[in-house]
Amino acid sequence: MTNISIIGLGLIGGSMAMDLKSQLNVRVAGVDNNPDNARVALELGLVHEILTYEEAIRKSEIIIVAIPVNSIETILSKILSDVSNTTVVIDVGSTKEKICASIKDHPRRGRFVAAHPLAGTESSGPKAALKGLFQNMKNIICEKELSDTDALQKAVKVFDSLGMETIYLSSSAHDKHLAYVSHLSHISSFTLSLTVLDIEKDEDQIFNLASTGYDSTARLAKSNPNTWTPIFEKNSEHLLTALEKYSDILDKFKKALKEQNTSALHQLMSEANDIKRVLNKK
Amino acid sequence: MTNISIIGLGLIGGSMAMDLKSQLNVRVAGVDNNPDNARVALELGLVHEILTYEEAIRKSEIIIVAIPVNSIETILSKILSDVSNTTVVIDVGSTKEKICASIKDHPRRGRFVAAHPLAGTESSGPKAALKGLFQNMKNIICEKELSDTDALQKAVKVFDSLGMETIYLSSSAHDKHLAYVSHLSHISSFTLSLTVLDIEKDEDQIFNLASTGYDSTARLAKSNPNTWTPIFEKNSEHLLTALEKYSDILDKFKKALKEQNTSALHQLMSEANDIKRVLNKK
Repeated sequence: MTNISIIGLGLIGGSMAMDLKSQLNVRVAGVDNNPDNARVALELGLVHEILTYEEAIRKSEIIIVAIPVNSIETILSKILSDVSNTTVVIDVGSTKEKICASIKDHPRRGRFVAAHPLAGTESSGPKAALKGLFQNMKNIICEKELSDTDALQKAVKVFDSLGMETIYLSSSAHDKHLAYVSHLSHISSFTLSLTVLDIEKDEDQIFNLASTGYDSTARLAKSNPNTWTPIFEKNSEHLLTALEKYSDILDKFKKALKEQNTSALHQLMSEANDIKRVLNKK
Repeated sequence: MTNISIIGLGLIGGSMAMDLKSQLNVRVAGVDNNPDNARVALELGLVHEILTYEEAIRKSEIIIVAIPVNSIETILSKILSDVSNTTVVIDVGSTKEKICASIKDHPRRGRFVAAHPLAGTESSGPKAALKGLFQNMKNIICEKELSDTDALQKAVKVFDSLGMETIYLSSSAHDKHLAYVSHLSHISSFTLSLTVLDIEKDEDQIFNLASTGYDSTARLAKSNPNTWTPIFEKNSEHLLTALEKYSDILDKFKKALKEQNTSALHQLMSEANDIKRVLNKK
């Protein structure tokens, strides 16, 4: 029997709990400092039981930390100090550089595995947990050379059992790439939502006329600010680089439109179409 | 038997053809000045037959014009001059104001119905045609008071038979609202794609790390420049208004990030979340 505790029973923690709980010889406990979330997670059957932090530390061979990235940074050092020398501590936050930096000199650094399973939806909380959310998705592990061999192996096994393929990156490469392919698209979606809410005085026309195209580009704008504020802050440098470039390209569209420059507009979109080829590699 | 001809056998024309062809007592002909598209549409069974423009004008009670909006503007007046006094001519372009203006003084204006079925995908051409694409979606008809009663009724019946609910707007209201809820989201998606292609030097990381979030925000960037260049040009005024607002809000995000202003970031995203309430009205 492997005892796993998941700290934070939101979309990610709750979905991991659900899939792990269905496996043989695994007992999944949940820890959440929001009593409502803990109750709902138990009622929904996401976890076998709810434990206090202290109980979870004492009972678990594997501890998964699935809370906002700023909170991970705050608590991670304490967790490593509290666990035994055989416990594996895995975080699943969307930024990695500052989290890794926060425990780099910790005597139990080797027990920690920095992970980022690339899956999610725009919903949040334990009610948003989905079975099979991680199936066929990628998981990233950072700074694997700083984790003990057995800790790394156990962590990879957890993600394997969720149906994920693990790839390895440095924490700085992780944060840079994620700023470009994930965090930027969230900002563009939040901005799209705010623009339409501001400019479209006739609210009924938004839901009347919003077709599948708008739905898909605005979907991420429903994401939880409590999750995304710290992600953006922790990755602000790379994200600002991306946003500057994004603004530059937006200006090109505006200029071409103002000048009714057909060939420039066509050219911009033809180049953008190249994303088809790149994403089709998947 | 109702004879319908569809001029332009791309995603929209091809999908309409497919659904109309499956109905009783309807014969659907296709017209396309691209012989490859015409051949493919016939091979895929989207239409009963391919006709020349002249044959289609002579044989059809209903003519649906499903070509890029600039081409609609070029050809519409000629079509109205060529058809009989009982033929119904429907366009399905994504902008309406300039198209309506182009035939406003035509002696057969009453035979024309300006429509915009709100459905589509990022793909194009007859191979992209989809059965049921319009089911449960909205259709907009503009300037209905300028269409003859029988022409309007027949047009609404066509869209009813595709499973659509028709709503009515002035052509200027249509173009304004569509700029905000559709055309803007296409620009944001094209811009996102171009940004990532420019900034992410390691192309493999795009498809490695692009999760469902990126896929959905970048989906529209795969759209056909031949379709979208004229839409943006014909609706440039409203679109530029929207883009200016979009840039302003993007600047707020950049400022908040630069200043690590947690509450400002959180506030922006909380406001953006309101799109959930608005879209859930649907």
